[in-house]
Amino acid sequence: MSDTRGVGSSTPDDADTDAALVGALRRVIDPRRVLVSSFEKALYAKDASALSPSEPGVVVLPLTTAEVQAIVRIALEFGRAITPRGSGTGLAGGAVPLERPVVIVTTKMNRVLEVDVDERTAWVEPGVLNLDLSKAVAKHGLHYAPDPSSQQVCSIGGNVGTNAGGPHCLAHGVTSAHTIAIEIVLADGSCCVLGNDEPGYDLRGIFVGSEGTMGIVTKVCVRLMVNPPAIRTLLADFTSIRDASAAVSAVIASGTLPAALEMMDANCIKAVEPWAKAGLPLDAEAVLLIEIEGVPEGIEPAVAEIRDRCLSSGARTVRVASSAEERALLWKARKSAFGAIANIKPDYYLHDAVVPRNRLVDVMESVIEIANRHDIIVLNVFHAGDGNLHPLLVFDGREPGVLERVHLAGDEIVRACVAAGGTLSGEHGIGLEKKDLMPLVMTEAELAHQVLVRTVFDPDGRCNPTKVLPAGATCGELRRVPEGAWV
Amino acid sequence: MSDTRGVGSSTPDDADTDAALVGALRRVIDPRRVLVSSFEKALYAKDASALSPSEPGVVVLPLTTAEVQAIVRIALEFGRAITPRGSGTGLAGGAVPLERPVVIVTTKMNRVLEVDVDERTAWVEPGVLNLDLSKAVAKHGLHYAPDPSSQQVCSIGGNVGTNAGGPHCLAHGVTSAHTIAIEIVLADGSCCVLGNDEPGYDLRGIFVGSEGTMGIVTKVCVRLMVNPPAIRTLLADFTSIRDASAAVSAVIASGTLPAALEMMDANCIKAVEPWAKAGLPLDAEAVLLIEIEGVPEGIEPAVAEIRDRCLSSGARTVRVASSAEERALLWKARKSAFGAIANIKPDYYLHDAVVPRNRLVDVMESVIEIANRHDIIVLNVFHAGDGNLHPLLVFDGREPGVLERVHLAGDEIVRACVAAGGTLSGEHGIGLEKKDLMPLVMTEAELAHQVLVRTVFDPDGRCNPTKVLPAGATCGELRRVPEGAWV
Repeated sequence: MSDTRGVGSSTPDDADTDAALVGALRRVIDPRRVLVSSFEKALYAKDASALSPSEPGVVVLPLTTAEVQAIVRIALEFGRAITPRGSGTGLAGGAVPLERPVVIVTTKMNRVLEVDVDERTAWVEPGVLNLDLSKAVAKHGLHYAPDPSSQQVCSIGGNVGTNAGGPHCLAHGVTSAHTIAIEIVLADGSCCVLGNDEPGYDLRGIFVGSEGTMGIVTKVCVRLMVNPPAIRTLLADFTSIRDASAAVSAVIASGTLPAALEMMDANCIKAVEPWAKAGLPLDAEAVLLIEIEGVPEGIEPAVAEIRDRCLSSGARTVRVASSAEERALLWKARKSAFGAIANIKPDYYLHDAVVPRNRLVDVMESVIEIANRHDIIVLNVFHAGDGNLHPLLVFDGREPGVLERVHLAGDEIVRACVAAGGTLSGEHGIGLEKKDLMPLVMTEAELAHQVLVRTVFDPDGRCNPTKVLPAGATCGELRRVPEGAWV
Repeated sequence: MSDTRGVGSSTPDDADTDAALVGALRRVIDPRRVLVSSFEKALYAKDASALSPSEPGVVVLPLTTAEVQAIVRIALEFGRAITPRGSGTGLAGGAVPLERPVVIVTTKMNRVLEVDVDERTAWVEPGVLNLDLSKAVAKHGLHYAPDPSSQQVCSIGGNVGTNAGGPHCLAHGVTSAHTIAIEIVLADGSCCVLGNDEPGYDLRGIFVGSEGTMGIVTKVCVRLMVNPPAIRTLLADFTSIRDASAAVSAVIASGTLPAALEMMDANCIKAVEPWAKAGLPLDAEAVLLIEIEGVPEGIEPAVAEIRDRCLSSGARTVRVASSAEERALLWKARKSAFGAIANIKPDYYLHDAVVPRNRLVDVMESVIEIANRHDIIVLNVFHAGDGNLHPLLVFDGREPGVLERVHLAGDEIVRACVAAGGTLSGEHGIGLEKKDLMPLVMTEAELAHQVLVRTVFDPDGRCNPTKVLPAGATCGELRRVPEGAWV
C-alpha cells in the first residue's frame, strides 16, 4: 500500500559506512547485542503487518537508557535514521525499517522497576510484555487495563507507540489513559521525562501514539487498576448482525457500561469454535461477548439489566459463564481468533477502523459486500462497544493476484468507515499502512500542524522517517475555513 | 507575583491606534458588542485571581466562529495580541489582558448546538456555562461530569482553557477526558477542528489546558455521562487531619473508587457551618465528604465498605445523607466554602497544587506552619482523593503589607508541594500566577519543547502572550541527562 524498499538494497558504499557504524556501536554496546548478519537483520525486516520487508542497516538491543542515548548519538554521527521496535507485533508497518536505519529493539529492557501499590502506579522498561506486567502486579490485587489480543507477546513500549487498545479499554480508555509519564530519548540523544501531571501543554499525550516518529520511549510510568471484586462474562447470540448491533446500542444506552463488549460474526465463529471449543453457537449470525465488573452485591442486577437489553434486541439466548474456566474459554475464543483463521487460509490482513456505533450495521454490510466483490473471505471480530471494527481478510498469499485484491478491498473498507463518519484507526496506528489515507480525515491545515509538531521533537526527520504522516504534508499555506461554514 | 501593567497605561499614540482598531472592528461586528469605554474595559481588566488588573485595548463579544475569525484577523492587521476570556472566573490570571490586547469574550456564544443522546456527546459553544450544560441534557438522564466549584458561572470554554477539574473528576478524570473535539481559531484567523479520535498526534490534548496561548476555542464536543441510578453521600468526621488522611488512603485502596472524596479542615468547617447549616461538626479537625455512585443493589455494600474504612482509620462518626435535600446541603457547604470565608476576612487567595496522597499529612502540616509563620489564616478545602490541595489564605487587603505576606506564604506552600513530589497545579492552570515557578517542575529541555510547541500554533506570540511559560524559556541548547542518571 506504500513505498517500501525490498530486502538487500545495500550497495558497496553502504557496506563501508555500515562497517564503520557497526564498529562505533560495538565500542559502546556489547557486540553480541549489535546484530549485523543478513539472517539476523532479516528477523527485524518487518512487523506483523502484510507490508513488504525492508533490511535494517544494523539492529541493536540496548539494556539501559544510557545505551539508547549512545546508540542515537552514533546514528546521528553517521547520518542514519533510527527505528524503534518493541516486540514487532504492530499491524500497520510502524516498525518496518525504511532508509536502512539503526533499529533499536527494546525487548531486553524488560524490567518492572518500581511498583507503588498505594498510588497504583509502576515504572517499567519498554520491553516489558503487556501480560507480564499484569502478572507482576497480580500479588497486589492490581492489573494493567489495556489488553490487546497480542498481550502475551506485545510490549508496553510498543503499546505506547501505537496508543494500543484492547477489549477491556471500553470502560477505562486506551493506552494514553493509562500512561502517567514517559521517559524518552530524542533524536539528538537527549533524554527527558514527560507527564507526571506536569502543567503546561500535554506533551506526554502527543508522544503516546506517535509510533517512534518523535523519539524513543525508554521508561513508562503506567496506571494500575484494582482487580474488580466480581466479574461476569456473558455470551449473547443473534440470528442477525442487525439485532446484535441494536443490542450493542441498547447495552451502551443502559448506563451500565460493560468492561468489554465484543462482537464476532458467523465466519469468525465458524473459524474459531472447532478449535477453541468454547460452545459458540455455530448457527448464529453474530455473538456478543460482554464482560461486567462490579461489587458482588451489584453484579447480578447488572447482569439482569444487560441480559434484558440483549433479549429485547432479539438475542436468541444469553449465557452467563458459570465458572472461571468457562470465562477463560470464552476469552480464549475471542483472543485466539487471529490464530484460528489458519484453519481457513494461511494468511490474513487485519484491518482497524472506527465508526459511530449507530452506523455499525450499515458499515458491516458494506464490509461484507466489499469483501464478496473482491472474492475475499472476511471475518469480523471487534470491539463493538466503541465502534472499533476489525475486519479480518483471509487469503492464501500463494494465489496470484490475491494480495492486490486484499489491498483493494482493505482500502475500500477503510474509506467506507470514514464515509460513515468514522476514522482510520482505533488502536493499531497509522505506520506505513495508512499514512497516505490521512488526508481523508484531516484538512491540509491540520496535517501541516501535525508536521510542525513532529518537527519540534525531530527537526531533521531522523526518528522512524516516512511513517504516520503522508509524504505530501507540508508546513505551507494553511487552508482557511470559509466564514460561517460550520454548523 | 508576575509582571502586570497597571490600568491606564495607554498613551496618545495608543489612543490613535485604538481608534482605528475599534473602527475596523465595528465595521464587521455590531458596535454594541465592541466595548471601548474605560468603565467597560475595567470590567475585563482582571479575572478572579488576586493579580493586578491591566486595561484591555478593546473588548469584543462575538456571536459566531466567523466573527471570531474576523476579530483575530483585524487584531493581526493592527499588530495586537488577543486574549480569550470566558466568564473570567480563572484563578491564575490567565485572562488578565497584558499588552493592551483585543479581549475576545465568549460569553455570548452560549448555545448548545447539538446533543447526540445515543453517542452521549454534545457540541456546544464555549460560552455555555458548566452547570447550564448539565441542565440542558438532564432530560436525557445525562450530565457533564467536571464540576468546578464555580460551575454556576464558569464556562465550558474556560474549562477547556484551564483543563478544569472539580470534586466529581476523581473517578472520571478532568476536562481533557471529557473533551472529544474542539473547533479552534488560530492566530492567523484560520479555523480547524482537533480531536474526534483522529489518528496522528493528539493535538486536541495539547490545546486543552493551553489557556488561550495557542488560539481560541470556538466550539467544543463534550462527552456526557449517564446519571448514576443510585447515589450516596457520606460525611465522616475526624479529630485529627492525620486520621482523615489515612482514611483517604484506605478508601482509595479499597478499590471502591468514590465519585468524589473531599476534605475540609477545622478552619474551613468553622467558616462554613454557621452560614450553610449543613450539620458539620464544629469540634472536628477534619471532615471527609464522600460520594458513591452505583446501581441501587450495589450501593449499600459500597457504603458499608467505605464506612468501615473510615471508622477503622479513626473516624468519630460516619453519617449518610438520608435525603436529596441533605445531600444538596452537604454539597452546598463544600462548594460555598469560598464565599463563606467573607465571614472571616474580606479577601482570599486560593491556591492549587497537587501532592502524592501518601504525603498529604506532611504537606498539610507544612501548609499550616507556613501560614502561621506569615500570620495568615489558612482554610483547607480540597479534592483529597487525588491529592489536589486548595489552601485558602484569607486576609483583609486593607492591612498594610498583608498582600506581600500572602504572596510569600503562597510561594512557600507551592514549593513545599513540589518538594514533596507534587506539582504546581491540579486544575486552576498556570496563567501569570505560576509561570515563573515552571522551572521547579520542568527541565530547561522540557520547557524548550513547550515553547516550540506553542510556536507551532502561534509563531509570533500573539495569543494570550506572556502566559503559562516563563519569560526565560527559550528554544536554545537542550539540557542532556547524564548517562545512567535515572533510577
